Amino acid sequence: MSTPHIDVEQVELANTAYYDAIERGDFETLTSLWLTPSDVGVDEQYHDPADTGVISCVHPGWPVLTGRGEVLRSYALIMANTDYIQFFLTDVHVSVTGDTALVTCTENILSGGPAPEGAGEPGPLVGQLVVATNVFRRTSDGWKLWSHHASPVLAETDGDEGDDTPA
Amino acid sequence: MSTPHIDVEQVELANTAYYDAIERGDFETLTSLWLTPSDVGVDEQYHDPADTGVISCVHPGWPVLTGRGEVLRSYALIMANTDYIQFFLTDVHVSVTGDTALVTCTENILSGGPAPEGAGEPGPLVGQLVVATNVFRRTSDGWKLWSHHASPVLAETDGDEGDDTPA
Repeated sequence: MSTPHIDVEQVELANTAYYDAIERGDFETLTSLWLTPSDVGVDEQYHDPADTGVISCVHPGWPVLTGRGEVLRSYALIMANTDYIQFFLTDVHVSVTGDTALVTCTENILSGGPAPEGAGEPGPLVGQLVVATNVFRRTSDGWKLWSHHASPVLAETDGDEGDDTPA
Repeated sequence: MSTPHIDVEQVELANTAYYDAIERGDFETLTSLWLTPSDVGVDEQYHDPADTGVISCVHPGWPVLTGRGEVLRSYALIMANTDYIQFFLTDVHVSVTGDTALVTCTENILSGGPAPEGAGEPGPLVGQLVVATNVFRRTSDGWKLWSHHASPVLAETDGDEGDDTPA
């Protein structure tokens, strides 16, 4: 059993590693950060009625994606259509209970698509205010992502000090 | 240790109980369905660096709410401003790992606000397509909600029944 401080620190690092992998377009690292059923002791040949360790993902405005195939394909698609993406994380909150950690954070996103055909310059940069709930599971290989749910912030009461007043 | 089938069934019942409580505007039952730190053995007087059992909630288009105070106030506000709400749940998927359960579902919502002032009739009904990730924790008093994240589905390729291929 590790101490609470170390748990929180390690979960924060796993959370940052997730966003870093997307920023770098590093699909291999991203893949390694997601939980597999075998990470939690399930034989993948076995039909498991509890779907132990089965991952899910919701991108902003998207329906739910379930299982490694759907989830990882979505990131390949996003990476192929993103020339530049940067996440400025704020309001990171971690709650660790047993072997599960819940992270909520605000993703202040700056991104740009590929250059339009024939144009020499990349597409315009777009800012987005998104909030995420990321669920991590403790494994012998570190904390792995079990679920990511991100959604656009459509309205806020007022525009306090943050630069993130949505439209 | 309970069997996987029974776990899944009980988690589904807890998930349904959550939506039923909102439909009925039953704030007391709703409150009882959310996890408290003491449910997971944390003395609430103790400053816990891991924020064990601290709940969080994201309503569609909202920023993150953290802790019982913020979360429960938001439901009181929603209930006060909703005369009628009904959830038709589809695509319910449960993944149980140890003492944590992850539920994803599509909330097909039909809702109506209170009557405009002076009008005898309730406000018009509005349909909404929302997806949710609900995280439950096993306690001695049953499965309790640790996190709810709901977000609007903003784009779908076509309107086939519940098959959710994103744009």
